[in-house]
Amino acid sequence: MNRRKLLQLLSKGAAAGAFVKLSGGLAQSKIPQGATDTMKVLGTTLREYGERSEFEKDVIRYISPNLRSRHTGASFSPLEKLEGIVTPNSLHFERHHAGVPNVNPADYRLVIHGMVERPLMFTLQDLKRLPSVTRTYFIECAGNGQNGYRNPPDMTLTATRSRGLVSNSSWTGVPLSILLKEAGLKEGARWLIPEGQDAAAYTRSLPLEKALDDVLVAYAQNGEAIRPEQGYPVRLVVPGWEGSIQVKWLRRIQVTDTPVMSKDETSEYTDVMADGKIYAFTWVMDPESIITYPSGLQQISRGFHEIRGLAWSGHGRIRRVEISLDGGKTWKQASLEPAPDALSVVRFKYNWVWDGRETVIMSRAWDEKGNTQPTQEEFFAKWARNNRYHYNAIQAWRIGADGKVVNGDKTLAGAPARLGAVGRGGCGGES
Amino acid sequence: MNRRKLLQLLSKGAAAGAFVKLSGGLAQSKIPQGATDTMKVLGTTLREYGERSEFEKDVIRYISPNLRSRHTGASFSPLEKLEGIVTPNSLHFERHHAGVPNVNPADYRLVIHGMVERPLMFTLQDLKRLPSVTRTYFIECAGNGQNGYRNPPDMTLTATRSRGLVSNSSWTGVPLSILLKEAGLKEGARWLIPEGQDAAAYTRSLPLEKALDDVLVAYAQNGEAIRPEQGYPVRLVVPGWEGSIQVKWLRRIQVTDTPVMSKDETSEYTDVMADGKIYAFTWVMDPESIITYPSGLQQISRGFHEIRGLAWSGHGRIRRVEISLDGGKTWKQASLEPAPDALSVVRFKYNWVWDGRETVIMSRAWDEKGNTQPTQEEFFAKWARNNRYHYNAIQAWRIGADGKVVNGDKTLAGAPARLGAVGRGGCGGES
Repeated sequence: MNRRKLLQLLSKGAAAGAFVKLSGGLAQSKIPQGATDTMKVLGTTLREYGERSEFEKDVIRYISPNLRSRHTGASFSPLEKLEGIVTPNSLHFERHHAGVPNVNPADYRLVIHGMVERPLMFTLQDLKRLPSVTRTYFIECAGNGQNGYRNPPDMTLTATRSRGLVSNSSWTGVPLSILLKEAGLKEGARWLIPEGQDAAAYTRSLPLEKALDDVLVAYAQNGEAIRPEQGYPVRLVVPGWEGSIQVKWLRRIQVTDTPVMSKDETSEYTDVMADGKIYAFTWVMDPESIITYPSGLQQISRGFHEIRGLAWSGHGRIRRVEISLDGGKTWKQASLEPAPDALSVVRFKYNWVWDGRETVIMSRAWDEKGNTQPTQEEFFAKWARNNRYHYNAIQAWRIGADGKVVNGDKTLAGAPARLGAVGRGGCGGES
Repeated sequence: MNRRKLLQLLSKGAAAGAFVKLSGGLAQSKIPQGATDTMKVLGTTLREYGERSEFEKDVIRYISPNLRSRHTGASFSPLEKLEGIVTPNSLHFERHHAGVPNVNPADYRLVIHGMVERPLMFTLQDLKRLPSVTRTYFIECAGNGQNGYRNPPDMTLTATRSRGLVSNSSWTGVPLSILLKEAGLKEGARWLIPEGQDAAAYTRSLPLEKALDDVLVAYAQNGEAIRPEQGYPVRLVVPGWEGSIQVKWLRRIQVTDTPVMSKDETSEYTDVMADGKIYAFTWVMDPESIITYPSGLQQISRGFHEIRGLAWSGHGRIRRVEISLDGGKTWKQASLEPAPDALSVVRFKYNWVWDGRETVIMSRAWDEKGNTQPTQEEFFAKWARNNRYHYNAIQAWRIGADGKVVNGDKTLAGAPARLGAVGRGGCGGES
């Protein structure tokens, strides 16, 4: 390779030169000499099943200390401690309605019945013989964001507590359309009623059109069997829709002509509008984004930082993420890592040199349908102040002159203290 | 939605109709009534860090019982028990030369020195502030496949033991080109000498051109910190090249004008040709594929099966995978799941109805450069019979009339009993 080619590669390979030197020069005399301690002893041996470094044990899901029951609450993915877009299975957020059932896969059966020509029953092995699909999809609790909204703002907020009820996995399963084709739909079939085998017999109504489009009867998550908290051995994956309809520990699907109007689609998971109306069946998740670095309770120093965050939308591919470095006055375009699928979380990045002055940073995502995120004011102009689902307003982080990062949201005059404050509990909140 | 639209969706959503009914009809009277046992008790509570189902504990890496030391051997990913393309971090294959060092990230330093304008030293936090890249790449031991080759064939072979020294992850890190640009290369710089901080002080030579192209100084793997076995806290990721050059527990990179000719690029990881020549610096992994279902020691029954497997190439994107159902006489094209990056493993699939007659199935991969896999005969015509690296011949599986699946490779007249049989040990084999 000649010098000219090398210089071309150097200029091609390097970033746009927007970052400053972090380490400065290092005198030859200061280069550490000799071996580290780890080089003086044999390390640990091969293992059948690996574990994390002992120095990473504080990377855990967040569980509110205020929960009345750990059977019916939620745990949050530690977003600001993760990189890329894969959520490690041990850290995927949880949301349960009656705890996590311990299902023996040898006993597992999935029944499809109701308005079908041929009721069917599948073992787990039956399902695995069928044509499979692997796709990367986010799953998000409809209540995600409740902790991000407090009035006045909660100054102890982290990215985890703001938006940690979203996770992203590579799911493998059988397209539900294949099972329905096997069963044969009867004239008039319009809805599916999936039921879980947890102690809540968790039940929802899924419109047939979505089921035939892209819904998976999934048995693997990021390469391995689905984890118990995520629905082992089999769950529905309903791309882009609220997590609560993606029934876990799936035991049967009844085909019907009308929705079942279960508790979890009437008294729960419905949306209160500012005009007093209440909407049911609001399944699609609107665009959201969260800056994970720098974010709440982190500490930064002057100089170069790559601002990083996550964006996603249930309506389609994220086309653009914008960053504001001045509290929302001006917006600049972040770069996006390639995402494997349209309804996957995407990682955004923005090269930034912090000059040490106090400022407020924000992100907002735009999807391929042209949807974006509202400000808090805009959100509450449309949605009622005692609504507690589908909150997707912009999250701001304030960086103090001391480099400390805290919640940058504003206090809103006349707004409630929290989402769902009027007369309803909370699934995504810390209630 | 009208009936016509519904039927269109059904026909669009379903597979090509190539599979037969697995479950047959189920009389209404046989539909299970009442709740499962799991529905009668509250399940387990939220957890800060999740674990696998107790019923999945047999999904583990394979470690040969014949290993003389578990510090210097390898463990194999259980390929036939995994789905999709993500290798769970706990199941990523291992290959160590002196065990796994326990590195404290607070003490971690990366030094870049030698033929540079400014020697540099980075903490882990320094590295994480810099521009990052997340990409999905396979890593494969150059010795992968050694167990797949035995003459006569090993009838106890599994997909794990045949090709389990390959794994696939989403890696996050700083492009090495950025660090080198910061350091400033001196005239005449041509090679990098990365060194690990394990007890082997594992050392290799990496040509500058590759380093400036796509090499990552990686600190995250599938979203979380790299696991100790994979190089915690920092390793090189050298896309498409043999795993042995992707130095783990990276402590320094010396810039030089010549390679260092370390043990692991001279007496190890060099290739013996049939004409007696020995090649060093054979870094790029040639195309490979392995059918993971049905595969060695599995048992199938008549009827529909989705044949599944994995394919990869260090030369570029996998363009085509072919399946033979008649021992290599004819070949049919498998379908490929979309792969996130060119140098990622790709999952292939083929719809098949087994009629119960004994047969031999095979796969072979083609990459975008037109490379494909040789037969065993072709492999040994080029490579010496005591070579033990870069074995990428086609793996066959024989399905007996009883549905039992075993190694389908042929006995080769005049061929050695195993790779590396003459005078050399084995890193990918079960020595």
